[in-house]
Amino acid sequence: MATKLTSRDTDYSKWYNELVVQADLAQHSDVKGCMVIKPYGFAIWERMRDVLDGMFKETGHVNAYFPLFIPKSYLSKEAAHVEGFAKECAVVTHYRLKNDPDGKGVVVDPDAKLEEELVVRPTSETIIWNTYKDWIQSYRDLPLLVNQWANVVRWEMRTRLFLRTAEFLWQEGHTAHETQEEAVAEARKMLEVYADFAEGWMAMPVVKGVKTASERFAGAEDTYCIEAMMQDGKALQAGTSHFLGQNFARAFDVKYATREGGQELVWATSWGVSTRLMGALIMTHSDDAGLVLPPKLAPIEVVLVPIYKGADQMAEIVEALSGIAADLKAAGIRVKLDDDDTKRSGWKFAEYELKGVPVRLAMGPRDLAGGTIEVARRDTKEKAFLPTEGIVAHVQGLLVEIQDNLLARAASRTADTTSVVNTWDEFVAALDTGGFVSAHWDGTAETEERIKQETKATIRCIPLDGDTEPGACVRTGAPSARRVLFARAY
Amino acid sequence: MATKLTSRDTDYSKWYNELVVQADLAQHSDVKGCMVIKPYGFAIWERMRDVLDGMFKETGHVNAYFPLFIPKSYLSKEAAHVEGFAKECAVVTHYRLKNDPDGKGVVVDPDAKLEEELVVRPTSETIIWNTYKDWIQSYRDLPLLVNQWANVVRWEMRTRLFLRTAEFLWQEGHTAHETQEEAVAEARKMLEVYADFAEGWMAMPVVKGVKTASERFAGAEDTYCIEAMMQDGKALQAGTSHFLGQNFARAFDVKYATREGGQELVWATSWGVSTRLMGALIMTHSDDAGLVLPPKLAPIEVVLVPIYKGADQMAEIVEALSGIAADLKAAGIRVKLDDDDTKRSGWKFAEYELKGVPVRLAMGPRDLAGGTIEVARRDTKEKAFLPTEGIVAHVQGLLVEIQDNLLARAASRTADTTSVVNTWDEFVAALDTGGFVSAHWDGTAETEERIKQETKATIRCIPLDGDTEPGACVRTGAPSARRVLFARAY
Repeated sequence: MATKLTSRDTDYSKWYNELVVQADLAQHSDVKGCMVIKPYGFAIWERMRDVLDGMFKETGHVNAYFPLFIPKSYLSKEAAHVEGFAKECAVVTHYRLKNDPDGKGVVVDPDAKLEEELVVRPTSETIIWNTYKDWIQSYRDLPLLVNQWANVVRWEMRTRLFLRTAEFLWQEGHTAHETQEEAVAEARKMLEVYADFAEGWMAMPVVKGVKTASERFAGAEDTYCIEAMMQDGKALQAGTSHFLGQNFARAFDVKYATREGGQELVWATSWGVSTRLMGALIMTHSDDAGLVLPPKLAPIEVVLVPIYKGADQMAEIVEALSGIAADLKAAGIRVKLDDDDTKRSGWKFAEYELKGVPVRLAMGPRDLAGGTIEVARRDTKEKAFLPTEGIVAHVQGLLVEIQDNLLARAASRTADTTSVVNTWDEFVAALDTGGFVSAHWDGTAETEERIKQETKATIRCIPLDGDTEPGACVRTGAPSARRVLFARAY
Repeated sequence: MATKLTSRDTDYSKWYNELVVQADLAQHSDVKGCMVIKPYGFAIWERMRDVLDGMFKETGHVNAYFPLFIPKSYLSKEAAHVEGFAKECAVVTHYRLKNDPDGKGVVVDPDAKLEEELVVRPTSETIIWNTYKDWIQSYRDLPLLVNQWANVVRWEMRTRLFLRTAEFLWQEGHTAHETQEEAVAEARKMLEVYADFAEGWMAMPVVKGVKTASERFAGAEDTYCIEAMMQDGKALQAGTSHFLGQNFARAFDVKYATREGGQELVWATSWGVSTRLMGALIMTHSDDAGLVLPPKLAPIEVVLVPIYKGADQMAEIVEALSGIAADLKAAGIRVKLDDDDTKRSGWKFAEYELKGVPVRLAMGPRDLAGGTIEVARRDTKEKAFLPTEGIVAHVQGLLVEIQDNLLARAASRTADTTSVVNTWDEFVAALDTGGFVSAHWDGTAETEERIKQETKATIRCIPLDGDTEPGACVRTGAPSARRVLFARAY
């Protein structure tokens, strides 16, 4: 275990970095910008992945796998796409090393230069649509609903664990449809899936919206997004779902025989969430003592810790706890009984607090004699001594309560920090307080850019369920069709 | 659906290539040496992955994720390792593209050259042991039992779908131990896990053995392997488990404080299986009509096909089949009811045969009237008309029978084609017949190489359970400690 964390009030960013490392979630590797996801962090990501994968399959999607490498020329086929990604691509130029003629280690073999350079995929639209050309001939082949779990690389100079790394893990859905309506409906359906996952599993409330033109994915006609509010008042884009129009079908000449016997370009979507969700999860719930995890995603939901002096006491208490652990396990709860004799119970308390285990059960000799057990919840840090009789049902209820409480707490924080403003002074003040700022905007990219330059705030989204009353732009006074959500963001 | 496959007798290699593509398992991509794993193929791989992942976790392993890129200098730290992998590495030299000054597409930006080139991981020992240096201080941190599911790249000039591709998917376990004994025990335990998976799930009998020095993994002290025999008489290495000694601990200076208060180098293992297992699965069981899948790994275990004329008949029969499908599903069987009205039942029969679905149930109007159903098994192509009453129990039994039959069939084929020979003429003749050849070898790398040059056969392994009687080398007549297994191999 770890030294004490920097508090969030002192330095939120430092608190985050320390927490990620000390809670054994991830660490920087020696490879610039690339992280190592440690076993405990990976166990959380695995649960997120498995739940999402189930949701994708329930909505009719299948998994496949496409190459890591994309020929350089493919990227160029969609103009906006290459513009968006060319500047951050890892490029493979050679396929062999050889012994250094000077006898020191190995060097790149100049004779093994590739004819065409390969880019490590930053996203897979181009390689996938080049393949879809083979897969789609007629409307009978549509819709094509494919997802891929993969690693991608976007070269970043300033990186932060989970939030911004050169290599990250994600899923990318790539679907093909007969009509524009169907493709738009798919993009919006997957946005709902993401929002359901964020709220139902991560206990993280999100605003569903659509991006402005300047914030769109490179190559999309519309980018839908879910935006979440972190504890420091900064927003985080947690997932995006793109309606790609016919842009990639046109770039890769993917046409289908219509029901009417004609030939039409195919309509497309793509949608993705990444290990960035780990950052969102951490920053939504955790506190100065460490990680706080929603039970539904916690690798360990309940930890049992014996408190004892000497081997005899230990044996008795561990036996009693083993029975409870077995009962909890039988009820489908993920449980760990920590009977490691080389660590003190105080150390264990701090350790599981740091690691965000939702419920801790502790039993000492007096509890054993009296038939009680100490129940501590991580979210509120409340403790109670309860009879061991009926403890399984109590813990089951408590896990539900914690999951609900985390969502409610985050939702009320998000609501409390959301401001509705009408003047420039109010706007600037609200941004400094933090949180979402709902304000009128004249709809031009110029004003959007000017506000960004002046305040570092961006339009997070045009909310799908927001206020659609017209008004006057908070910056220019020009007419505004409706309010949009601004915030400073990760 | 597809044109008829080339028969195995006509051209086994062509049969394999056609089958992989026509059964929708995988295809070559435009990126040299890289494959696209199609949804049906990926669904099989997903089942294999999930089962293996469960077995790894049951034996105490956890998953983590390490970077895709390895600094070039890391590879050089273990001499044998770099020797083994340097010649097939994809090398990243730049991190940015820019617009072509000539206005045509994008080019590599010469200003974005990396100080040190990065290799796309061909395997992860070096990056992982560089990390383990941080994770291991004392014997309390051991054993460290970590697995990673990842893509790796080994540049290959001649590629074959699943069997040999530049990029492939795999898992790589990397464990660290206090003692040599523990590390050897771990390497052998994982070999048993692989063998159990091959026989229990893939219905593929394997020989467990250890490689000769010249066939060892680059950097290992001992390489254990499972070897399977394909239908064309060629062997396939299906999985390897390496005892790495202290080689990587030495290269990356990973020491631990011992129980006695000293400092010792850590002992290591690594072990892996890859999408190559897909090739092994296909070649072990499939026939001239297409894929044959063991039920335990089949994405669809039972397909139900209605046979009808007109919409009224169709509705009635589909209703009856829906009931049966629901009952099968409730019994935990993976089921598909194909009520697609745009395809004929004959087409469907051929399609599901090609795709290796273990059991096909078909119902026509006479069956509906008589309360019967046609049951066809893919492995033997036997058909029977059975009462629908009790069909679930029958199908359950049949799936077990098919799984068992596939293993038995492959085991007797492997046994029938294994020869025990004592002279060079017998040896050469046996190799030409195909199958494993058990023969005496004088134990020298020179003789091993000479036999390889003369016959294209390699020593697949020194079997763990084999005949240990001494004898005379089949090639040189020199003393031999025991028989080893030769074969031509994939």
